[in-house]
Amino acid sequence: MNLTGIIGYPVTPFSQDNKQIDLDKLGRVIDVLLEAKVDAIAALGSAGEAAYLSEAEWRQVAEYTVQHVAGKVPVIIGIAELTTAQAVNYAQHAHQIGADMIMLSPFSYYKLSEAEIFQHYDTVASASPLPIMIYNNPATCGVDMSPAFMLSMVERIPTASMIKESTGDIQRMHKIHTLSDGKVPFFNGCNHMALEALNAGASGWCTAAPGLIGDKPKQLFDAIKQGENEKAQALFYQQYEFLEFIVSSGLAAAVKSGLALQGMDAGEPRKPLLPLNEQEQQRLQGMLDGLA
Amino acid sequence: MNLTGIIGYPVTPFSQDNKQIDLDKLGRVIDVLLEAKVDAIAALGSAGEAAYLSEAEWRQVAEYTVQHVAGKVPVIIGIAELTTAQAVNYAQHAHQIGADMIMLSPFSYYKLSEAEIFQHYDTVASASPLPIMIYNNPATCGVDMSPAFMLSMVERIPTASMIKESTGDIQRMHKIHTLSDGKVPFFNGCNHMALEALNAGASGWCTAAPGLIGDKPKQLFDAIKQGENEKAQALFYQQYEFLEFIVSSGLAAAVKSGLALQGMDAGEPRKPLLPLNEQEQQRLQGMLDGLA
Amino acid sequence: MNLTGIIGYPVTPFSQDNKQIDLDKLGRVIDVLLEAKVDAIAALGSAGEAAYLSEAEWRQVAEYTVQHVAGKVPVIIGIAELTTAQAVNYAQHAHQIGADMIMLSPFSYYKLSEAEIFQHYDTVASASPLPIMIYNNPATCGVDMSPAFMLSMVERIPTASMIKESTGDIQRMHKIHTLSDGKVPFFNGCNHMALEALNAGASGWCTAAPGLIGDKPKQLFDAIKQGENEKAQALFYQQYEFLEFIVSSGLAAAVKSGLALQGMDAGEPRKPLLPLNEQEQQRLQGMLDGLA
Amino acid sequence: MNLTGIIGYPVTPFSQDNKQIDLDKLGRVIDVLLEAKVDAIAALGSAGEAAYLSEAEWRQVAEYTVQHVAGKVPVIIGIAELTTAQAVNYAQHAHQIGADMIMLSPFSYYKLSEAEIFQHYDTVASASPLPIMIYNNPATCGVDMSPAFMLSMVERIPTASMIKESTGDIQRMHKIHTLSDGKVPFFNGCNHMALEALNAGASGWCTAAPGLIGDKPKQLFDAIKQGENEKAQALFYQQYEFLEFIVSSGLAAAVKSGLALQGMDAGEPRKPLLPLNEQEQQRLQGMLDGLA
Repeated sequence: MNLTGIIGYPVTPFSQDNKQIDLDKLGRVIDVLLEAKVDAIAALGSAGEAAYLSEAEWRQVAEYTVQHVAGKVPVIIGIAELTTAQAVNYAQHAHQIGADMIMLSPFSYYKLSEAEIFQHYDTVASASPLPIMIYNNPATCGVDMSPAFMLSMVERIPTASMIKESTGDIQRMHKIHTLSDGKVPFFNGCNHMALEALNAGASGWCTAAPGLIGDKPKQLFDAIKQGENEKAQALFYQQYEFLEFIVSSGLAAAVKSGLALQGMDAGEPRKPLLPLNEQEQQRLQGMLDGLA
Repeated sequence: MNLTGIIGYPVTPFSQDNKQIDLDKLGRVIDVLLEAKVDAIAALGSAGEAAYLSEAEWRQVAEYTVQHVAGKVPVIIGIAELTTAQAVNYAQHAHQIGADMIMLSPFSYYKLSEAEIFQHYDTVASASPLPIMIYNNPATCGVDMSPAFMLSMVERIPTASMIKESTGDIQRMHKIHTLSDGKVPFFNGCNHMALEALNAGASGWCTAAPGLIGDKPKQLFDAIKQGENEKAQALFYQQYEFLEFIVSSGLAAAVKSGLALQGMDAGEPRKPLLPLNEQEQQRLQGMLDGLA
Repeated sequence: MNLTGIIGYPVTPFSQDNKQIDLDKLGRVIDVLLEAKVDAIAALGSAGEAAYLSEAEWRQVAEYTVQHVAGKVPVIIGIAELTTAQAVNYAQHAHQIGADMIMLSPFSYYKLSEAEIFQHYDTVASASPLPIMIYNNPATCGVDMSPAFMLSMVERIPTASMIKESTGDIQRMHKIHTLSDGKVPFFNGCNHMALEALNAGASGWCTAAPGLIGDKPKQLFDAIKQGENEKAQALFYQQYEFLEFIVSSGLAAAVKSGLALQGMDAGEPRKPLLPLNEQEQQRLQGMLDGLA
Repeated sequence: MNLTGIIGYPVTPFSQDNKQIDLDKLGRVIDVLLEAKVDAIAALGSAGEAAYLSEAEWRQVAEYTVQHVAGKVPVIIGIAELTTAQAVNYAQHAHQIGADMIMLSPFSYYKLSEAEIFQHYDTVASASPLPIMIYNNPATCGVDMSPAFMLSMVERIPTASMIKESTGDIQRMHKIHTLSDGKVPFFNGCNHMALEALNAGASGWCTAAPGLIGDKPKQLFDAIKQGENEKAQALFYQQYEFLEFIVSSGLAAAVKSGLALQGMDAGEPRKPLLPLNEQEQQRLQGMLDGLA
C-alpha cells in the first residue's frame, strides 16, 4: 500500500439531542472530503470524536464509512483505546468490514512504559492482518513515543509499516528519516507544520481541513512536490491562521461549527466538548471568507 | 462531612484470566486498608484501575465497596469519564448505592476549556446530591485545573466543597489556602509530597500506600498534627523511596505486585498495563522489608 | 562551621546616577539584616546584583561587607562567574579579606556539562581554602545541577560541604536528604517554599526578605524547630504573598523599592533592570502594611 | 542593507595557555568562512565565545575582524551583555571601527521583563546608528522574546530591522512572517532546522558550520531557492547529524575540535568550557569524513 498525499478526517455528525449518529450527514461530510481531492479517508480519528462514542456507535461509523467511500480511496480506521482487549476487538472489526488500514495509538490513563506500548501494538497486530500506521499524539493520547521506539516497532511488528507524527516537533521527523535511512514512510499530523513536514520528507498530511477549505491542502502538497516553493509558501501562509485555529479550538468543534457556517449542519460535539462560541465563530467565518 | 486523615485507595483484583473482578479479594483488600486505620475508602480511583473497567464492572466494584465497608468509614467514589453523560450516569449510581461522596475529575482526549470543565462538573452536580471532591491530576487525566479555577467551581457549585490536588506542585496548595482564606479543605494526592502537603494545611492524604505498609501513613499524619516534627520527618523519609516507587512504577501494578509479595494474590493489572518485572519486584521487596 | 537559621542577603545600593556603589547605605542595609536576627550575611548574591558589578565594585562590596559585619555573624561571598579564571580570582579575594565561606554557582552562556561544572568547582576549591556552598539556581544561572551530581561534588571536593537549592522543587531536597543519609546540610533558596523546605530538613533559609520584614523569617524558622506547626503555618501564610512577590518581580528591584517605601533610599537597580512600577509599588506597600 | 544567504560565525582562537587571542589564527578562521562562500561574517557570537572574553579582548576581535574581512562581505558584531551600559559601550565601538550591523540579544541573570528588554534595545539603538538584528536565543541568553514583542521593537525602534530566531520552534517563524505580512526579514539560528526555516521564508541562515563543512550550507540555501526540493532534502539530511552534533556538544568546542582534526589548531575553548573528549572527536571525525 503506497499511501501518499492528503488523508482526510471526517467529523462525526450527531442528532439534535447529541445522542445518536446521523449517518446521512456523515455521508455528506465524507463526500465533501472526496470532492476536496483527499487521497484517503481516516475514520474515527480525533476529528471524528472516536473517544466519545459508545462501542455500537463506533462500529456504526466504521462500517458506514467503508461502505460510503466504496473503494474510491483507501479507508483508514483510527483505534485509540484504553485497554488492549478493546483495541483488538476494534482491529478485528476493521478487518471484517473491509477497511484498508488501521491507525493505532495508545490511549493512556496511567502513563505506559515502552514494554506496555509494544505489547499493545503487538497484540493488536496479531489479531488483524491490516497494515498499521503507528500514531503518536501525546497531546490527546497522554503518552509520547520517541522516533527510535516507533521505528523499533516497525522493525519488530511485520504489519506496522508507517508512522503518523503529531507532536509538532519537526525534529521528530528528521529523526524518523535519519534513523530509518528514509525507508519508513511518515505522515504529518500537525496541521500548522504541514509546509515543513512535507519538505522534510513526510509522505502525506493527515488533516480535517479539507472539510472546510476544499483542495487547498492538496494544492499545497502538489506545489511542494513540484518544487514551486514560492507558491507553496504563499499557499501555506494563506491557510496558516486557519490551520492553527482549528487545532487550538478543538478539531471537532471547529470543523462542525465551520460546516454549519457553510450551511451544512453536522450537530454539536459531544459533551463535555462545547461548540465554538460566537466570537470564535465570527473569527472562523472571517478566515473562511478569506480562503474562499 | 468533615473529612480528615488518610483516605485509602483499594486496587481492583481481577481473576486469573484478567477478565473478571474477584470480589472476595476486593473485600480482603479493603480490610487491609481498614486495618491500616484509614479514615475513608476511595473506590475506583487510579489505583482501582477504574479507567480500564467496563460499565458493569465499575458498578459492581462501587456497590460491593459500599456494602463491604458497611459504614465503618465514609466511602468515596471516583468518577473520571470522557463524556459528561457517563459521569452523570455514574454519579447517580453512586448516590443510589449509598456512597458518601464523589471524587470527580475530568478525563480528556481533547484538551478541555474551563467552560467545558465547569459544565461537566455542574451537570454532574445537578444529577446527584452527593458532595463532590474536585480532583486535579493532569498526569492521568490530561487536563490541568488551576487553584483559582477550582475555587471558582467551589463557589458556584453548591455541592463542590473540597479539592484533591495531585500535581506534586506544593505552590498549588499555597494558592488554594491563600485564595480561599484557608476555608476550602484540600487533600494531597501526591504520595511523595505528603510531608509538605500536610504541613501546608492539607486536610488529608489520599493514598494507596496503606495497602502495603499498614498504618505508617497514618502515623505520619498524626506526628505532624502533634507537632512532633523530627518524628514526622523520620517517618516520611522512611517511607519516601517506597512512596516515590509506587507512583513512578504505576500504582495498580506496584500495589498488586506488593500484595502478591505479601502473600495476597490480587491478580495482574489489566492490559496494556503490565505487572512489575522481576527487578522491580525485588526492589519493592527490599523496600517492604525495610518498612516492616 | 555549623551554619543554621536565616542567611540574609543585602542589596547593593547605588549612587543616584547608578554608576557607583554607596557604601554607607550598604552598611545600613546590612544593619537592617542584623537587626532582623539573621544568622549569617551572604554578600554578592542575586539580591546584591553581583552579576551587574564591575570587578572593582565587586571587590569593594566584598571587602566592605566583611569589615562592616565585623564577625558578628559569618559572612558568605557569592561567586557566579562565566569563566573559571574569574571565579578563582574572586575566591582568592574572598579568602584574603577574611570571609567565612563561598557560595559558588556556575553561570552559563553555553550550557555546561557535568564535567565542565565539576572542573569549575574543583579549580576554585583548589585556589581557596574557604568552605564552599554549592548553589543551584537554574533560573538565574542557566544550568541545573541534580542532587546526585551535587552530592558527588561534596564527596570528591573536600571543601565543598553544603548545598543551596533554589529550583523550588521540594523533591530535590528529599533526594539530597535521602541520597546523603541526611548527612549533607542543605539550604533553601526558594522563598515561597520555606515552610516545606525547613520541614523537609533544610538547615536554613537563604533570603533577602528580612531586609523588609524584619525577623518574621526567623520567627518562622523557630516555630518549625519548636514543633509549633499551627503557628508556623500561620506565619508562613502571612508572609507568603510577599515572598512570592519579591521573587516574581525581581529581588533587587523589589527590595530596593521596599526600602524606599520604608524611608531608606538604596538607589535603583542597574539597567537593564528597572525599579518596580507604581502599581507594583502600591501592591508592595499593601503587603508591607499587612506585615508590619 | 539587503542581507540574505549564509551568515558565517568564526570561532575565537586562543593561545596555548588560553589567556590570549591568536589574531593570526582568527584571520585564517575567517578566510575559511569566506572560502565557504558565506554572505556575511558575524563576529562575537556564541561560536566566538564572546561571553568569555575580557573587554580588551572583545574590542580586539571586533577590530581585527572588520579589518581582515575588509569589505568583502558585511560584518555583523554580536552584542550580548548583562548591563545596558556595556552594550552601549560595545555598540559605539562597533560603529567606530566600521562594522555594518549589530546583532543584539539581551543576556540575563535576573529574568527581564519586556519593559526592561525594550529599554535595553532602545538605549543601545540611540547610541549607535548601525542597523540592529534582534536576536532571540533563550538557551544561551536566558530570556525568551515572543515574535509579537520583537516585531513591536522593529516597529518602535527605527534601526531595529531584522530578527534572528534560535529557539528551534518553527512556529515562531510562522508568527513573524504572518504578523508582519512577510515584511520583516528573519534569519534562522537553529542549525538543525535550516531546511524548514528557509522553506518558511527565512532570509538566511546564521551558522558556524561552514567553518568545518565548506559551502554545503550555501548549497542547501541555493537548492531551496531554486526549487530543487529533492536535492535540498538530500543536502540537509547529509548535514543533519553534523548540525545537530555541533549544537548539542557546544559550538565553540565542536568547531575548534573539528578545525584541529582538519589540521588547523585554533586552541581550546575557555574554561569552564572543555574541548570535545576523545569519543566525541571520533564521532566528529566520522561525520566530517562522510561530508568531505
